[in-house]
Amino acid sequence: MKKIGVALLGLGVVGGGTYTILKNNHDSIRKNDGIDIEVTHILEKNTARCEAMGVDMSIVSTDIEKVVNDKNTHIVAEFFGGIEPAKTFLTKCLLAGKSIVTSNKELISKHWPDLEAAAKKGKAGIYFEASCVGGVPIIRTLTESMQGNNVLSLKGIVNGTTNYILSKMDGEKQEYANALKQAQELGYAEANPVSDVDGFDSMYKLSILSTLAFHNKVPIEAIYREGISDIHKIDMNYGKMFGYTLKLLAIAKKVDGKIEARVHPTFIPNDNPMASVKGSFNAVSIEGDNVGEIMLYGRGAGALPTGSAIVSDIVFAAKQSKPQYTSYKNSNDVSLRNFSRDFITGYYLRMTIIDKPGALASVAKVFAKNHVSVKTMQQLSGASEDRVDAVFILHKTRESNVKKACEELKSVKCVAGINALIRVEE
Amino acid sequence: MKKIGVALLGLGVVGGGTYTILKNNHDSIRKNDGIDIEVTHILEKNTARCEAMGVDMSIVSTDIEKVVNDKNTHIVAEFFGGIEPAKTFLTKCLLAGKSIVTSNKELISKHWPDLEAAAKKGKAGIYFEASCVGGVPIIRTLTESMQGNNVLSLKGIVNGTTNYILSKMDGEKQEYANALKQAQELGYAEANPVSDVDGFDSMYKLSILSTLAFHNKVPIEAIYREGISDIHKIDMNYGKMFGYTLKLLAIAKKVDGKIEARVHPTFIPNDNPMASVKGSFNAVSIEGDNVGEIMLYGRGAGALPTGSAIVSDIVFAAKQSKPQYTSYKNSNDVSLRNFSRDFITGYYLRMTIIDKPGALASVAKVFAKNHVSVKTMQQLSGASEDRVDAVFILHKTRESNVKKACEELKSVKCVAGINALIRVEE
Repeated sequence: MKKIGVALLGLGVVGGGTYTILKNNHDSIRKNDGIDIEVTHILEKNTARCEAMGVDMSIVSTDIEKVVNDKNTHIVAEFFGGIEPAKTFLTKCLLAGKSIVTSNKELISKHWPDLEAAAKKGKAGIYFEASCVGGVPIIRTLTESMQGNNVLSLKGIVNGTTNYILSKMDGEKQEYANALKQAQELGYAEANPVSDVDGFDSMYKLSILSTLAFHNKVPIEAIYREGISDIHKIDMNYGKMFGYTLKLLAIAKKVDGKIEARVHPTFIPNDNPMASVKGSFNAVSIEGDNVGEIMLYGRGAGALPTGSAIVSDIVFAAKQSKPQYTSYKNSNDVSLRNFSRDFITGYYLRMTIIDKPGALASVAKVFAKNHVSVKTMQQLSGASEDRVDAVFILHKTRESNVKKACEELKSVKCVAGINALIRVEE
Repeated sequence: MKKIGVALLGLGVVGGGTYTILKNNHDSIRKNDGIDIEVTHILEKNTARCEAMGVDMSIVSTDIEKVVNDKNTHIVAEFFGGIEPAKTFLTKCLLAGKSIVTSNKELISKHWPDLEAAAKKGKAGIYFEASCVGGVPIIRTLTESMQGNNVLSLKGIVNGTTNYILSKMDGEKQEYANALKQAQELGYAEANPVSDVDGFDSMYKLSILSTLAFHNKVPIEAIYREGISDIHKIDMNYGKMFGYTLKLLAIAKKVDGKIEARVHPTFIPNDNPMASVKGSFNAVSIEGDNVGEIMLYGRGAGALPTGSAIVSDIVFAAKQSKPQYTSYKNSNDVSLRNFSRDFITGYYLRMTIIDKPGALASVAKVFAKNHVSVKTMQQLSGASEDRVDAVFILHKTRESNVKKACEELKSVKCVAGINALIRVEE
């Protein structure tokens, strides 16, 4: 029987979930996978929490050197989050030959090459299934199941907090601020929600997932990012009338042989399977040239779902006879698209029009001048009698053209305001 | 660079797809995974097909001994289907130390222990990702991503042919015979469609998937099986009125600590994500005690999707320093439920009633006597003026009670016929 010592750096939400799973499933992992896992160290300041969880207090400390110097610790699972001290501690562990398991998407997306160098030196492995989409095995799918494919695109709802907020706005017709407040009260959103609602969390995950999918570096700096805090429920309602549901989508695809990666609120057709991904659930679809489209769906966060991914990585790592790490940059053949935010998508555009004969004609003229083509348009009752909401669904167009048209529309007499511009992916 | 020789037994649909992927992706697999794959042998009688695919004819033969005795062949991928000669050939290969990769669900579900014994003797591995749900990485998910969970249930649409037929009946309101004919014309169904439409194919897959999910043998003999050939479109239409979509579902779950496994037409709520799995697409959901519900979706069949799974197994096998096989019966702790087809589910029941005062009362009396409880009921216009269709949705009940009630209803005067009894899973 292979005996594996595991150190846990942190015993917060996910650390605690992992500890619980390792304890409850110790015997079944022993029996099913032939691995006898022992928790050898827990680094945690909050000793009360450790006591409450029934941890043997002799293994609790705040001293990373104890972990690094322990020959009976083979795998180190990190739950601190953020860059420091996680990076310093994990680098020490890797150099000492201990494989690391982490859910730290910020650390991996920002410092993958540094960790990889340490892993190479220390002959250790790096595993981060838990960093993206909680318990959903998306990393394992990309590394172990897509070898017979060139990935063409990857799309996902990869942040549970924003999907919860958008679902509330959609289903219960709440405004953004209310939905956020409720998410905070329920613990789905942080007191400072910036990382989630402004799309940073999704950006970190997209960097990791698309780097794996395309075997090509996709650093966070190359990802266009836009959050959901400017979204109004009126646009979600209007979108529904046109057959669309709004989601914060992480998208990476090959366009003209280059990689384009972006995170932004996106209207998708109601009958797209992703449109029915509700609340804190997540989903990722991958399109391979041979397998076609596959989609994975499940809980993207939470103590036990994420703990489940951590434990699967621990067992996976323990079963390897040689530690594994996936290289950050297997190749750089496909360069990143220098799109200057000028990607080509469909658009939903809402403006306020002063309802006079010829109003639509003058708007249409500006569109035509900028090569913007309208797919469908509807005039809706507005704030006052002479002012109406006009919603346009635009055909796939270069974004610079749409932006230029919007700029010019501002000086058109009958246009009282450009209120919302939201991208549409069919 | 690790050089791996691969023999292909058969160059039919999936064999051909695999050959194409190995050829087209040779360089990318070399670069991304560090494996240099060479096809060393192809066993195929149809030499014209081999020539048409541009195969080097010096590697084509019908002689398995050439494969068995070739030291430069490390992995053997089988595409014959059925039991023989696949079993004899693969056993020889395993005994000679060659790992096998197969999409042969019938062989694995019926002879897993025999193959395992040969693999153990020959120190070889067995990989069968492609046997269940084509390109969807469901096997890898069960073996490499669920180690931190006790699986509570597994449900899936695992046969593309029947899902295509049911989708046609649902969407285009066709009768079964028409939909089947169309599926045959398009190559989605075999000339002899029994294996698909009578649920054998789903049963093989459920045996494999549930054995892996529960770490417990679930032989095909323990699986209740019922096909779709008796399904009428009228019941699909009526089901829709009650909010249900009909699917051929493979279901395995723990009930009272025992495993219950069954394949049968099943009504599921329209808003269940599986209800929107259309055409030849497949989906499997797994419920783990820690991860909650995860779902995988994609193409369950076809040359390239299944070839994609075969190639992922070849690369996965090639990367292992020690060949792997998953034991057929890790434990037998959880015995199989001797349900005698007496499981507990909801039911959809359609009968023809002679529309007279007191008719419903006499039906209700029989239900009550047999402890069958009605959730909702609707009378619908029937074949003639005095005969109406009555549809009952029954609460979760022991099936023996429902069957007994149906038997007794036949002798109730106002009941002209019991027309359909379909299980409902909420």
